Formats: sequence, structure tokens, C-alpha cells
Amino acid sequence: MLDKVDLTKSMKKEEYRALKDTLDARLSQLQRECRNAGIPIIILFEGWGAAGKGTLISHLIEPLDPRGFSVYTTQKEDENERMHPYLWRFWTKLPADGQIAIFDRSWYRRVQVDHFDAPLSPLRLSQSYQEINSFEELLIRGGTVIIKFFLHISKKEQKKRFEKLLSSEETAWRVTKEDLRHNKHYDEFLRLNDEMLAHTDTELAPWTILEATDKEYATAKMKTLLIQRLQEALKNRESIESASLLSLPTSGAEEYRPSVLAGVDLSKTLDRETYKEQLDALQKKLSRLHSELYRRRVPVVLAFEGWDAGGKGGAIKRLTQALDPRGYVVHPVSSPNDIEKAHHYLWRFWQYMPKDGHITIFDRSWYGRVMVERIEGFCTENEWKRAYKEMNEMEESLSHSGAIVLKFFMHIDKDEQEKRFHERESNPIKRWKITDEDWRNRAKWDQYEVAIDEMLLRTSTSYAPWIVIEGNCKYYARIKVLETVVDAIEKRLSH
Amino acid sequence: MLDKVDLTKSMKKEEYRALKDTLDARLSQLQRECRNAGIPIIILFEGWGAAGKGTLISHLIEPLDPRGFSVYTTQKEDENERMHPYLWRFWTKLPADGQIAIFDRSWYRRVQVDHFDAPLSPLRLSQSYQEINSFEELLIRGGTVIIKFFLHISKKEQKKRFEKLLSSEETAWRVTKEDLRHNKHYDEFLRLNDEMLAHTDTELAPWTILEATDKEYATAKMKTLLIQRLQEALKNRESIESASLLSLPTSGAEEYRPSVLAGVDLSKTLDRETYKEQLDALQKKLSRLHSELYRRRVPVVLAFEGWDAGGKGGAIKRLTQALDPRGYVVHPVSSPNDIEKAHHYLWRFWQYMPKDGHITIFDRSWYGRVMVERIEGFCTENEWKRAYKEMNEMEESLSHSGAIVLKFFMHIDKDEQEKRFHERESNPIKRWKITDEDWRNRAKWDQYEVAIDEMLLRTSTSYAPWIVIEGNCKYYARIKVLETVVDAIEKRLSH
Repeated sequence: MLDKVDLTKSMKKEEYRALKDTLDARLSQLQRECRNAGIPIIILFEGWGAAGKGTLISHLIEPLDPRGFSVYTTQKEDENERMHPYLWRFWTKLPADGQIAIFDRSWYRRVQVDHFDAPLSPLRLSQSYQEINSFEELLIRGGTVIIKFFLHISKKEQKKRFEKLLSSEETAWRVTKEDLRHNKHYDEFLRLNDEMLAHTDTELAPWTILEATDKEYATAKMKTLLIQRLQEALKNRESIESASLLSLPTSGAEEYRPSVLAGVDLSKTLDRETYKEQLDALQKKLSRLHSELYRRRVPVVLAFEGWDAGGKGGAIKRLTQALDPRGYVVHPVSSPNDIEKAHHYLWRFWQYMPKDGHITIFDRSWYGRVMVERIEGFCTENEWKRAYKEMNEMEESLSHSGAIVLKFFMHIDKDEQEKRFHERESNPIKRWKITDEDWRNRAKWDQYEVAIDEMLLRTSTSYAPWIVIEGNCKYYARIKVLETVVDAIEKRLSH
Repeated sequence: MLDKVDLTKSMKKEEYRALKDTLDARLSQLQRECRNAGIPIIILFEGWGAAGKGTLISHLIEPLDPRGFSVYTTQKEDENERMHPYLWRFWTKLPADGQIAIFDRSWYRRVQVDHFDAPLSPLRLSQSYQEINSFEELLIRGGTVIIKFFLHISKKEQKKRFEKLLSSEETAWRVTKEDLRHNKHYDEFLRLNDEMLAHTDTELAPWTILEATDKEYATAKMKTLLIQRLQEALKNRESIESASLLSLPTSGAEEYRPSVLAGVDLSKTLDRETYKEQLDALQKKLSRLHSELYRRRVPVVLAFEGWDAGGKGGAIKRLTQALDPRGYVVHPVSSPNDIEKAHHYLWRFWQYMPKDGHITIFDRSWYGRVMVERIEGFCTENEWKRAYKEMNEMEESLSHSGAIVLKFFMHIDKDEQEKRFHERESNPIKRWKITDEDWRNRAKWDQYEVAIDEMLLRTSTSYAPWIVIEGNCKYYARIKVLETVVDAIEKRLSH
């Protein structure tokens, strides 16, 4: 998930100051209402060292009535805690009805920083994820509201912050050897964080990533989303008077939605000559690798999504040109037929999952669930929200069974799409490729962008990453797809 | 779970014949209604070899319209299946809306018989349980009804059936070498089956154990519970006309509820002299083991439940007499106070979980949730139904953290209780022990028995077994408790 986060987000100091009073007044009011409704609330902060968890917690508690909350800092287990079951120290700190418990690091410590410093066995790690998910589910079903924030900063930003702390004698003690080691091995730690987020991003207790480069932005987003979640919690309690809720202004949470596509640099290009050269070299390589895949019995799943006219077809063609036709299948996905509609939405894709040593290329995929089906209302909100986890789990189980899983999103901008649509219309050979539906979808570009951003964030995992392809230049796009596939196969075969 | 199943249940042939037509007519009607409602149904049969899965399936399909169901026998994976992800072969066999898929063995094969023959790694096993649970959850949330039967027979019964098959040339081929090995290592296989049932007995897809010694009984129970589940499924579909449901007679499923207590032999006794001798020897042993537990840092959780005047106090006293008071705590549990009521129902017990090397004895426990709270309506039906899994998971996490967890149910019969109540009332020293509430609870004996039977079945696990103590003779009861504790500690320390 983290690789898709746009860390450049920021907010002007004045802008935050202008918002602050409203946000704080709402938080204060919501604390009172949740106390009256007897709702226990857990707010937890996880994230990178020096990402600003402490600062954010200070901002959070400022407007709150101190009799109604406790802040817990979760350190490494002390001797007494080590002598109890893992979750014991959190059980003893659970908030009573109407109270708020704020955790600066929490039960995630064990599968995050502690695991990075002293790795758990794969079995113990898997058990820990299960225990965490069971624990949260049990609390939530028992009426607790759990809100989980993950503060994300880049390797460079973290390094800068550590250096600043180290430069003054007063703050240097705050940076430990472990901190510096974490920064040095940032990429490895990122993979681990990503795995943790994917395993515990559940329907009942989803993660919210806070882009924490800019503190004003992070604080405003944290408070806004908190307000939204608490309002929802109150609405779900029938006991609460609906009148008091109506007095709350809308929260504006949509402003803080993730943006992934907006950060993609579509100006990347490749000239025709370089393209030809690289294409030739990569295809030769891929061809060799395909035999090796077959020999080593490694299955490969490649899923292509993207804007209409985004270049899926062209990219797939450049892949298959290099492949032995006995070892791959391209499966084009359109709307489900009647038999498919009478089954679970994932059923029709399972029919085409490759056997060991084979490649299946899906031209559009199960992700239609959270794009077209979401936008056109072909499934309910609960259904598409649940689908993120279902698809992550399906891809994880493919990965467990040995498959390489890669997902490409072919991205172009709106102007480029229009250009390509017109080209298609004026070219008799390509005219069949463009329909009225394409124009109708284009009119919903903004809605699609919201859905795609959320999809890319929530379903990009270490075992099945999304690769966003800068697609305005077809040469560049095709080479990047080929390169990514070749790299992933080489990496797997080198083990 | 399986150790608590009463395998002596049977039904007279005539009795079954009298029921058969009604059951079959209902099943046939329900198949039509489910088809009209477009509900996909999966019925799966797991269990011991020679337990009668095939016969039961024949009885099941007899009244069904053959155009509406398919039967799949799940063998060991063939080469093609082995080259696909684990769940692929089941995905491709999922029923369409309105159809029924019947599985003779299913996705559980991998974690049951295949795992017994060629053990998965602990990590792969844990992942497989997760994949199974995710798969079932995804299907159920997508509208599929999943009904899971486990056919249980004893080691002796299984051996008898194998021998009968072997005695005729026509059937001898049906018994494989593996079958005989499974029977030889029945106890080991039982533990594995038990673990599988505990991990996959979920709120959405609970297991039904079929006592399969007697085929008439097993068939009648299977059909009756199937009818009940299908009726519930139809009721949950708003689309279905409620009128058609009302025409269905009630199913009588309560007749087939598990009975555990009824099978307990309460005539067991011990004379005073043997008691004294054994008590002395066991207490000396326990005393030594307690030091060893402390030295080896093994925590112990002992939970006592039982009928009022069942002898909990006396048994606990005989334990603690042998223990160093610095190393144990007895925690008496009564109704929750206001602070406890303001927390999750498990919260108050977590406060007392022992640290490594210590013993906590709970005099009554979290199981109040599924006994008094269930019966008195202090929690909702969903809450107590969910609690089985929550308590199993809590105990599993205690066990993962290294604890020995034992749960005792002190069982006496109704006459014995009355006798003891009167004794208490007439003895000035013991009079405080008996209250009006005890008499009120006694009046609900039958309701309690239903709740206790279900509790013992659903929450007796390999990592936290229930031991039902035959309590009519106090001497016998106390020695059995002491013996069980001593054995469990010795077994652990011997590793």
C-alpha cells in the first residue's frame, strides 16, 4: 500500500489555522456525544520513527476533556509483560464505555518494529496477525470503535529528521542506533510495513494512511477523518438522538482521499529508435525466461487495467510476441454473461488461473468490481468495500501457491485519451475499437479517478503489486511493462 | 470437540421409516424454494473413513431433483490439480445460483486426511486454515449457504467396519493400507480432526457433528438439520414469500442437540481410605511439580465450572493445599460489577491471566457468557453464539504463549444437588453457601443442560480441553481433578 502514497501532500500553515477551531470544536463535541452514548474508542498511531506520532497525539488531545481519555505509549515489552500472553498488556488498557484510549504504537509493535529488530518465525508471525485480527474483531463486535492511523514518510525525509535531532545536544538522545538502522534498511522495513498493513486492513478496522511529510496536512487529515469515523459510530448507535447529529457540519473527508494517479509523471517518453532496440533485447530475454518458467513450473498471473485507449492491447501484444503460444493464454474480460452472473464475482476468473509453468494474461480483471461495478452501482457499497480484502486474499493465496502476480494500470491523461478516441474514429481499421460506451465512461473520468486511486492504494501488496504505467508515450509504456515482467521473473528464478 | 460426542446415539429402523417421508418431502420442497430464490447451496461431508459418507449422500439425494444438484467426490489431487492453486479445483465446482453442490470430502481434505498422511509445515497448515476460512466467508457473504457435516465414529466401530469390508472379496478392495494405518493411529488422527474443527467452526459456517455409529440416527439428524438450515436461509432472503415458509412444519432439530452430560457415568466412587492415600501421593507430586513449573516459567490456567454444589470449592482446596501460595491465585468470579460491565466481557478475566511460572485458578470463568448470560438473557443470541469462537481463540492465544489451559466441569445429578442443598441448609457452618438464587437456577436445570452440552462440545479443544468430572462422589471427583492437573503438567514438562 505504501508505495502508492503521495508524500508531497501539504497544507499551508494559515490554511490549517483557519480550520483548526472548527475541527477542535467538533472533536470536543463528539467526545461528549460518544461519552453519553457509552461508546468505547481506541485511536492508535503506528508508523515510521520520527514520523511525528507524538506531535499528532498532542494536537489530538488538545481539544479533549482530559477526564475522558488516556494516552498509552507502547514500548518494548518489559520483563513483566514478556511473562504474560502477548495481548495481555493491551487487554488491561482497554477503554471503558464512553472512554477514549489513545495508543502511541500498539499491538502492532510486535509485527512491525519488534519484528524488524528480531524477526518472528513465519509461523509465529502468521499467528500474530491472526491474533490481532481476532482481537480487533472481538472488540468491534462488542461495540468498541477502533481507528487506526499509519504515519508515512520517505526514507529521505526520515533521514533529514534524524539528522536535525542529532545536530542538537538537547534532542540527540532521542535518536537511537536502531532508528538509524531502520533508516538505512528503509526499503526492507517498507516491505514489512506493507505486509502488516495488507494483513490487517480489514472491513471492520481499515487503516488510514497519513501522509506525514507535512505536519499541518497530517494533522488536518487525522482530525477530519476522526470526526467522520466518530460521526459514523454515533449514527450506528440507535440510542443517540438524531437531532444532535444534524447539528454537525459535514466533515469534508473527501478532500483527504488518497491520490495516486495525480502523482504519476506522464511526460516520460522514449524515442522510436531506443524503443526498437530495447524491445528486441527484452523480448529475447523474455522468450528465454518463458522456457525457464515452464521448466521450473512457476505460474504467472498478469492483470491489465487502465483507461480506455490506455494501451493495454499494445502492451499485451509486445509481451505475447515473445511467448511460446503453448505456454500462455490471454483472457479478455468483458461484462459477465448470465452463467457468470449466477456465480460469485471471482468465480469466472478462477477458471483461467494458470497451472504451474503457465502464464495467464487478463485483459481487464476482477478489479472491475471496484471500478465499473462500483461506479455503475452493479454491486452494493458493502460489496465493493469488502472486495479489497477478498482480492488481496485471493492474490495472496495465488502467491502462496507459488505464482508471480503482477498488476498493471495503464495510465494516460484526459487529453491523450481524447486524441486517441478521435484517431480511432477516423481510422477505418481501428474504428471497431471505439464505442459510445467509451465516451460515456470518459464523462465519468473523475469518479473513476477516485475509485482507481483507492484501488491502487488498498490492493498494492508485496505479493501482488500494482505497477502504474506512464502511458502517454506508447513506446515508453510498452518497454516499462516488458521490463517489469522480465525483472520479476528473473528475481523469482534467481531464488 | 470430538471427545465430547456421544457415539451411542441411535434410532430404531421403524422410527426412521416413519420419519423418512416427511423429511424427504420437505427437502424436495426446500430444494424448489431455494432454486426459486436463487440461493446457491454447498453441502459438504467430512469425517472418518468408513463413517458412512457415501451412504448418507445417497439418502440425501434420493428426494432431490437431479437437475438441481451435483455430487463431487474429492480425491487426492491429481497432477493437473496439483499444478493449480489449492482452492482452484473447488472454485471451478461452485454451484450457480439456485443449484446444490454436494461434496464427499472437500477443501478440508488438505488439512485433514492429506495432512495426516503427509504433514504440512506448521506455517502452511496455518495458512491453509486461513485460506479456508476466507474462502467460506467470501462465499457466504456473496450469498452461498454452506452446510458442513462431520461424521464421527469410534476407533472400535471403524475397525469393525474395516474388518467387515475385508471379510468379503467383493468389498475388500475398498479398504486401503492407509485406512488401516488411520485406524491404528486413531487417537493421533482424532487430535488432528479436533484441531481442524476448532479452527474452522466459525459463526458463519459452523460444523455439525453427526454421530455416525447408527446410520438411521445419522441420516435423520442430517436431514433434519439440513431442513432447518435451508429454512433459515430462505427466511433470510427477503425476496421469498413468507407464506410458503409458514406451510413448512417445524423441523424438530432440537431433538438432535448434542448430549455430553447424559453420557457421563455418575456412579463412579472411591472409598475414603483409597482417597486419603491417593490424595497424599498426588499432592506431594503436585507440590514438586509446582516448583518445577516456576523454574521452567510455564503459566497454568485452570478454570472450574459446574452445577451449584457440584464440588468446585472442595476440588480447588485440594489443589491449593499442595501449592506454594506465592505461586498461585484463586480468582472467584461472580456477576460483573459496574466497571466490569463497562468493558468487554472478557476484559475482567484478562486482568488475572497468570504470568509465566504462575497458576491462576478461576472459580467460575468466562464461560458464564454461554451459560448464565445466555439463559438469563444478559446477552443477545448473536453474542453468545459468537462467544464460542472468541473463547476458543483466547485460549489458543494463551496456549501459543506457552500456557497449560485446563477446564473442569463438576457434574452431579439433580438428586445429588438436592441432597447437598438440604445438607447446606441444615448445617449452620455451610448455610451461607446456599441462597434463593441457587434454588432458582436449579429450576432451570434443563435449560442449563442444553447450554452446557453445547458449550462442552464447541469449546473442548486440544489446547484447552474440557474435563467433565463425575462429581456425585466427592472423593472420586477430587482425585480425578488432581490427577488430571498432575498429568497435564508432567506431560508438558517432559517436552
